[in-house]
Amino acid sequence: METPEPSEAPEDAEAAPSAEQPAPAGIAAQDWAAASADPQYRAAVTDLLGALAYGELSAFERLADDAKLAPTLADKAALARMASAEFHHFEQITERLTMIDADPAEAMAPFAAPLDEFHRMTAPSDWLEGLVKAYVGDAIAADFYREVAVRLDADTRSLVLRVLDDTGHASFAVDKVRAAIEAEPRVGGRLALWARRLMGEALAQAQRVVADRDALSTMLVGGVADGFDLAEIGKMFSRITEAHTRRMAALGLAA
Amino acid sequence: METPEPSEAPEDAEAAPSAEQPAPAGIAAQDWAAASADPQYRAAVTDLLGALAYGELSAFERLADDAKLAPTLADKAALARMASAEFHHFEQITERLTMIDADPAEAMAPFAAPLDEFHRMTAPSDWLEGLVKAYVGDAIAADFYREVAVRLDADTRSLVLRVLDDTGHASFAVDKVRAAIEAEPRVGGRLALWARRLMGEALAQAQRVVADRDALSTMLVGGVADGFDLAEIGKMFSRITEAHTRRMAALGLAA
Repeated sequence: METPEPSEAPEDAEAAPSAEQPAPAGIAAQDWAAASADPQYRAAVTDLLGALAYGELSAFERLADDAKLAPTLADKAALARMASAEFHHFEQITERLTMIDADPAEAMAPFAAPLDEFHRMTAPSDWLEGLVKAYVGDAIAADFYREVAVRLDADTRSLVLRVLDDTGHASFAVDKVRAAIEAEPRVGGRLALWARRLMGEALAQAQRVVADRDALSTMLVGGVADGFDLAEIGKMFSRITEAHTRRMAALGLAA
Repeated sequence: METPEPSEAPEDAEAAPSAEQPAPAGIAAQDWAAASADPQYRAAVTDLLGALAYGELSAFERLADDAKLAPTLADKAALARMASAEFHHFEQITERLTMIDADPAEAMAPFAAPLDEFHRMTAPSDWLEGLVKAYVGDAIAADFYREVAVRLDADTRSLVLRVLDDTGHASFAVDKVRAAIEAEPRVGGRLALWARRLMGEALAQAQRVVADRDALSTMLVGGVADGFDLAEIGKMFSRITEAHTRRMAALGLAA
């Protein structure tokens, strides 16, 4: 998974935490050994790592699939390299799940259906759509995990930030898409529609996950004690949507 | 690429080189710097590494595809791990091509059509067919490259043998296939037919490559000076076919 450009979301969240949010300092200042004493926190982290692991595995499959659409052997190799990088992230996360006594397959299972459905609804019809999807999907996922990272214990946070580290793949996608739009401006309109559809499907699946996974959702809004506030989830989604809009503009696409 | 069990072919070839073959000691005793002075040898090695690189890239894609058919998340992860290992082999070979001043994409290009055609003709229809294909395909490729390795300069030989190193993947396939046949013996008949078809298609494509690539084919039969002998190529193919038959028997399949 990649971080195409620094997301502004976590800074926002740190600079101006909304009044409803408990200060994240509590758990964020702890390590896993201390934080995991709370069974609800443990369940939330298992969910989070399960979702992240399945996301990486699923990104691996998607990129490997897109490699088939590559116009040149060099492009095919570049996509295969990205796929392989996602797989190594997947391995780091599943090792971590095993280390905290969670079964990786069980932890991933609840997220398989929403992610598979997202990919089914957004199968790219050509190479450029595949690139835009990889770029947009990775960026949204990175924004989301950065939002969450500030609420995690130090050990889990360091893993999450490590697997989101920019591997230079985003710039590959951006260069190719920009060049294609310059060569044929009409392509921009089609890809802008495509990016909008990706965002819509991503939000639909994310809302489904939020509705299903209580422990995870409660953690997302910064509290495990008082249940969660749908308005706060809505704010997080809109921060992520705004970051997406800025990224699309940078790419030369109206979002 | 994997070496499911030690192939006997190279030992045969070393123990009883046929009378027509010049002793391989000449080039095999040299390093790349010395051997590459012969432009025909250089062309043959470029071809060989190009074929091997495309084979690895194509194995990456095939395994990533098969991961979709996996019955469990653990199986899916195991296939993704194999795919990623093939990709790392691919990277080693393309780095080597670059080091010897060959363009990897150009070196691979002549082998893309035969390999793509092979995969098109042998798309597995289920998980077990995919496993048998990965096992059979890797084993045949490993046999072939071991046959060739004895004729290579020391530097190229060490790379070729390194990327054929057993990564433990074959035993994964063998275990799963054996268990499936034990659970339902009829499956064995279907998979035996499938393995026969794989071998037939592999030989058809290999013969196409032999007919097209003079420098490579000449090297395969151990001589770059006198042109090549189709009978010798035939012998190599039959050694590889025999090894395949033994492997299928070990798997519980009549070949």
